[in-house]
Amino acid sequence: MKIAVDVLGGDHAPQEILLGVAGLLRSGDFRSDELLLVGPEEAIVRGLKAAGVTEVPQIAHTEEVIEGHEKPVEGLRAKPRASVALCVEAVRTGRAGGMIAFGNTGATVAGATMGLGMLAGLKRPGIAVTLTGETGRFVLLDVGANPAPKPLHLFQYALMGAAYARDLIGATRPKVGLLNIGGEATKGHPLLKETYQALGAAQDDSMAFVGNAEGDEIFKGKADVYVCDGFVGNMVLKVVEGFAEYMLHTAAKGGAGEGLKPTLRSMMGAAEFSEVGAATLLGVNGVVLIGHGRSRANAVGPALRLARAEVRSGVNRHIVESVAAHGAQAPAQEA
Amino acid sequence: MKIAVDVLGGDHAPQEILLGVAGLLRSGDFRSDELLLVGPEEAIVRGLKAAGVTEVPQIAHTEEVIEGHEKPVEGLRAKPRASVALCVEAVRTGRAGGMIAFGNTGATVAGATMGLGMLAGLKRPGIAVTLTGETGRFVLLDVGANPAPKPLHLFQYALMGAAYARDLIGATRPKVGLLNIGGEATKGHPLLKETYQALGAAQDDSMAFVGNAEGDEIFKGKADVYVCDGFVGNMVLKVVEGFAEYMLHTAAKGGAGEGLKPTLRSMMGAAEFSEVGAATLLGVNGVVLIGHGRSRANAVGPALRLARAEVRSGVNRHIVESVAAHGAQAPAQEA
Repeated sequence: MKIAVDVLGGDHAPQEILLGVAGLLRSGDFRSDELLLVGPEEAIVRGLKAAGVTEVPQIAHTEEVIEGHEKPVEGLRAKPRASVALCVEAVRTGRAGGMIAFGNTGATVAGATMGLGMLAGLKRPGIAVTLTGETGRFVLLDVGANPAPKPLHLFQYALMGAAYARDLIGATRPKVGLLNIGGEATKGHPLLKETYQALGAAQDDSMAFVGNAEGDEIFKGKADVYVCDGFVGNMVLKVVEGFAEYMLHTAAKGGAGEGLKPTLRSMMGAAEFSEVGAATLLGVNGVVLIGHGRSRANAVGPALRLARAEVRSGVNRHIVESVAAHGAQAPAQEA
Repeated sequence: MKIAVDVLGGDHAPQEILLGVAGLLRSGDFRSDELLLVGPEEAIVRGLKAAGVTEVPQIAHTEEVIEGHEKPVEGLRAKPRASVALCVEAVRTGRAGGMIAFGNTGATVAGATMGLGMLAGLKRPGIAVTLTGETGRFVLLDVGANPAPKPLHLFQYALMGAAYARDLIGATRPKVGLLNIGGEATKGHPLLKETYQALGAAQDDSMAFVGNAEGDEIFKGKADVYVCDGFVGNMVLKVVEGFAEYMLHTAAKGGAGEGLKPTLRSMMGAAEFSEVGAATLLGVNGVVLIGHGRSRANAVGPALRLARAEVRSGVNRHIVESVAAHGAQAPAQEA
């Protein structure tokens, strides 16, 4: 199965994307028939050859791209051959088993949702990221697709996150926590209280519900999967990113010196979206990854390896099965 | 003007609170007539004398306390002589110019709101904290008093935060940012869009509105005051606290060694609520500080100095003046 790669999206496209792809091909980590590159054919061939690639992957030619500042739906309408749209089309027709785009997040979410539709039984897509804390890797979702979810959406995010944690981070019975500002079941918005009850009733061999998790518990390993609305999740992810950068700058200025930087940088690696490689759009009928717009060549490898692992894992099939199996515990749609 | 100190609230009360108070008195930083200690008289006198204090401050005797796990309103009803209630009473009657409690945050918010009422024109209290970022100190509010505010509440939080930044962190024309998940005016919940418009119209010599601020901009100095709902603010504050602890542990384990710890700890000081000393409940008719329940003796000094600075600054008068001056730009109450 091929991974479709949007070569045109992102702040440093196409050069850095191509350099990253070239590195993966040269090292033998990816075979050329595992990739479908979406972008300007001549520039792709020239760029890869210059970087020492002998066997150039298949190319879906286009020169159109939805820029970072463009409105997603309008951009998709005005540019039917935008690189992200061709990636989605490749997944829809089965030409590729999954896709990754480093550009406009909104355009990727809108393009994939409209072009692929939802998985059976799923109501709304959510964006999941994997971070590292005291006890290892954990999943956080939604980080921005759905800022005002209903209880049913949050409930399904929990099931999606648990399936993802089983398949991609090796948690056999993932602990699921609901991000909240207090530990008790009665805390938070009504939508959180309803989700809390439903998740409590839904726990079984496939996942354990550990209740509410407060902000200071996220990195302590309270859960393997943290569920929240897209506003809160986006804020959490970006605050961590910004705070890590602040600490790095402060350490550098504070006489901690250059010797400290590598340590801090590796500590932060886990928290920096750009080094994780990519986030995953869960809930749509296809494997869709969203790379950070700031991605450089070194972010391309981890992102493509993650995309391939997701395709191979069958995570979307497991999500559909889990949602079907937990239908009886799901909150009502109109809650 | 005295500061009323709840000696019974918090995880390490009364010992650590008394040790902190004793240190302030011994050093001459506070005179004994600047304090009103609320708690068990005999234990206070014994504790302070044992810690080398010769002139014991006034004491309002009580042995009742609302524990951390108690429901605020029920606790206040069941224990009319709870230490936090007596602190509020001291402020209400003018026996003290301000108060600080290290215990149950909900009880302090509820007790102060019911006992003191709101400042003229103010609709809802908000909790403000001061943190340090790349360009110095900044104010974040609300961090937990009001998880589902209306646009009018957020608007008033902005004015309160700006007055606080002028008086307490020396920003002459504070930059105010609205925490959001995108930069454009059209991003986020409807309540944020309405607040955005109102703040844009309200900016003048007393404050500048810099628009939306994303999570990764908070520590970069985009604004002096960041405004958000109490759910998001609480999450941001606690995530930073937890992430800083995680980094400290990782650095210690990762062979960065003991030599690194002091640097990291001082970097984190700014972010750790417990070392900042306290948060401030703004909007109520009195100076009310909320210390971290985990506070140790060394957190008491900064908290009490902050309380005294707030009383002296006249910040509450400046808040009332600013809200009155910006009435024409305020969102409608029922929006």
